Amino acid sequence: MAQITPRTLKGFRDYLPEAMAAREALIETAKRTYRSYGFSPIDTPALEHLEVLTGKGSDETDKQMYRFEDAGGRTVGMRFDLTVPLARFAAQHIQTLGTPFKRYHIATVWRGENTQAGRYREFMQCDFDTIGTKSPVADAEMVLVVNDLLRAIGIQQFTISVNNRMVLNGVLENLGLAEQSAAVLRALDKLGKIGPQKVADELLRTAGADRSQTEKLLALSSVQGDDDVVLDQIRRLVEGSEIGEQGVAQLQELLAACRASGVPAENLKLDVSIARGLDYYTGTVIETTLDQLPAIGSVASGGRYDNLAELFTKQELPGVGASLGLDRLLEALRQLNLSPCTPPSADVFVPLFDKDHTNDYLSIAAKLRRSGLRVEVYPEAKKLGKQLQYADRRGFRAAVIIGADEFAAGNCQVKDLSEGVSHTCVLSEDASELIEQLQTLIGVE
Amino acid sequence: MAQITPRTLKGFRDYLPEAMAAREALIETAKRTYRSYGFSPIDTPALEHLEVLTGKGSDETDKQMYRFEDAGGRTVGMRFDLTVPLARFAAQHIQTLGTPFKRYHIATVWRGENTQAGRYREFMQCDFDTIGTKSPVADAEMVLVVNDLLRAIGIQQFTISVNNRMVLNGVLENLGLAEQSAAVLRALDKLGKIGPQKVADELLRTAGADRSQTEKLLALSSVQGDDDVVLDQIRRLVEGSEIGEQGVAQLQELLAACRASGVPAENLKLDVSIARGLDYYTGTVIETTLDQLPAIGSVASGGRYDNLAELFTKQELPGVGASLGLDRLLEALRQLNLSPCTPPSADVFVPLFDKDHTNDYLSIAAKLRRSGLRVEVYPEAKKLGKQLQYADRRGFRAAVIIGADEFAAGNCQVKDLSEGVSHTCVLSEDASELIEQLQTLIGVE
Repeated sequence: MAQITPRTLKGFRDYLPEAMAAREALIETAKRTYRSYGFSPIDTPALEHLEVLTGKGSDETDKQMYRFEDAGGRTVGMRFDLTVPLARFAAQHIQTLGTPFKRYHIATVWRGENTQAGRYREFMQCDFDTIGTKSPVADAEMVLVVNDLLRAIGIQQFTISVNNRMVLNGVLENLGLAEQSAAVLRALDKLGKIGPQKVADELLRTAGADRSQTEKLLALSSVQGDDDVVLDQIRRLVEGSEIGEQGVAQLQELLAACRASGVPAENLKLDVSIARGLDYYTGTVIETTLDQLPAIGSVASGGRYDNLAELFTKQELPGVGASLGLDRLLEALRQLNLSPCTPPSADVFVPLFDKDHTNDYLSIAAKLRRSGLRVEVYPEAKKLGKQLQYADRRGFRAAVIIGADEFAAGNCQVKDLSEGVSHTCVLSEDASELIEQLQTLIGVE
Repeated sequence: MAQITPRTLKGFRDYLPEAMAAREALIETAKRTYRSYGFSPIDTPALEHLEVLTGKGSDETDKQMYRFEDAGGRTVGMRFDLTVPLARFAAQHIQTLGTPFKRYHIATVWRGENTQAGRYREFMQCDFDTIGTKSPVADAEMVLVVNDLLRAIGIQQFTISVNNRMVLNGVLENLGLAEQSAAVLRALDKLGKIGPQKVADELLRTAGADRSQTEKLLALSSVQGDDDVVLDQIRRLVEGSEIGEQGVAQLQELLAACRASGVPAENLKLDVSIARGLDYYTGTVIETTLDQLPAIGSVASGGRYDNLAELFTKQELPGVGASLGLDRLLEALRQLNLSPCTPPSADVFVPLFDKDHTNDYLSIAAKLRRSGLRVEVYPEAKKLGKQLQYADRRGFRAAVIIGADEFAAGNCQVKDLSEGVSHTCVLSEDASELIEQLQTLIGVE
């Protein structure tokens, strides 16, 4: 038979067990954290009517979208993010769900991006949002969730940078650049990447900002220091602008709420240079960087928006939420040697010595599992060396060795595979001594 | 602005929080069970080169597949099951992974099915397989996993029906119908649906079976009784056929291994009428029905196959595995009132009485969360009635009520929302008494 070459599409990837176990562990931690704040899971289809997806996306996402005509002649697209589907979902179901509506959504999205940039065309997003309230409590919770989540995966050295779009808008108002805000924000957002001179060029070109305006804009971005110092400085910059003063008050309130909830000072920073490229943010914006790995970029970003679903409903739906950078976090955990301590397999290995005793091994394994242990029985009576080689590759914690001598004596050897030490253990009908020894060795409570 | 009607594509569906929480809980239980046997997770892309997907599928799946040309001119398809991607994956990676390779894969698949039959065009599959071994231990584990899984979700009354294709092949050999086995199996598989007369018609039409052959085939399907009785009867039917006798021996071995592992007799049944429609099974086959809901069909089905990846590699990869019917199981749990006891939200509700105390509520909530409790703070200082209405709809277990009086007295009210009873509780700096009361009320250990 002519064979087909087994390969994935360009920009797509398989997850082998080790990588997938790490991804699953991270997602489980994210879910646990989201739930601990009352966020509930939802899901939406991978395919949507094309008009649903093209409505709000940028030209870039429109161009990258996978789209086709289905067998029924409908023009459809594959979702490229979870925000547009959320807008459609909220417009359709908010009457049933009521507000505030707190949801998380962890799902795959597709973008036909240029793979030369090391980007994948299929990846997971991991979003949480609170819809239908303007309360600053929801803004604060966005920061608290990110703080809890990073700690839960073992990272302590990180900086959540917060800003508020209203502060920027107030400054622009005072500078007479309010109408050019989108162009100004896009330029300022590149400061870290292209430097002040090129940003100044772009500000002149796209926003018509003169030298004095540009200097004040760049001065805003370089405001540094303790929160109180920064707040004082920006308060002067927005003085007289109602929206700007509101923005400063909101920022101050957000910082106080986060401090009251125990976010350490070193993990939270007021940073007026944070703008977030996306046009739809209108209030709080956040970005999160890892202090040891700044080059990896933001691992959790988000903000507040005024009207989520205006394309689909007249009902005004304000909201606030953020998205976790799963791939970046997994890469960071790998670089920091923090990869989640879930071996991609069971904890206890039972080699199969003697085919005639197969059912005895299965029976013992079943008893261990009923006590909560995770147990793998090797399926073939190969040489012990081969079986232990397999165990070694898989990373089990312990092995239960029962050969002819042990069966005759009614006991077994419990081997600690990391220490290489063995202990003899009585093998009773209920396997209680064996269960106890294994639980102690593995650290199950 | 002209608005777009928010709607999903025909045959696609949104998961609202309650339905999604139930699905998540079921999937988590499946993962926990799979892992407890040493199965590891993998993932593969939703899109594959079309030639990968069309190679092995049936005409029906080929017709139902979502396929299109991507922006780079590649002909691609969306996966319609997890077996074909596993074959491609195994051919590509088995040298790295080694055998036996035990994987689970929980992922979305797409089929442009006729929605009039109540079918969805997007659904999740939940497969587990052991690749690279012919050991009967792997066959037995398939049954053990299904048994453990159903118990773990609270179902005790179920029947795992087992059979072996070699038994059927032995009977066919003895009847001189070995060459027509695919047609015969397809016809026999319909016995429950269309009855013996129509099956006999089909056997004549598609397999050329005469009346005497048909009678013997139908007799085989009606063999009933205790395992030992059935084994004796089928042993007579396959007598003289080597493959048939091997099949009977394997069945006997499988039943013994499952009994030794503690599968109760009432949950496991030898049923020679089970054939499974799919051509690629070559040994053990299983189906699982719920005794109280037989109409729902099989909730876990699978079997052994000789050569998973022959389209992609010369390496012979035998394997055995099964697939969980997630949608059917969710429907069953709903009908049996066994819906997983995960409220789609946090356990503890903190109403926000007084805006000026917002940070105090946030601080208390943070302390409760650090002790492992799941806590939602209402984001707005609305009337208490409104807030409790919300809490009622969401299904919280307890509320922590702290109004002006309580703040003054340094205590709070802990309200059991199912019983409607309140207790006063001291509100210390570390909230220890409150944490203890809530943990007792909710049943967290």
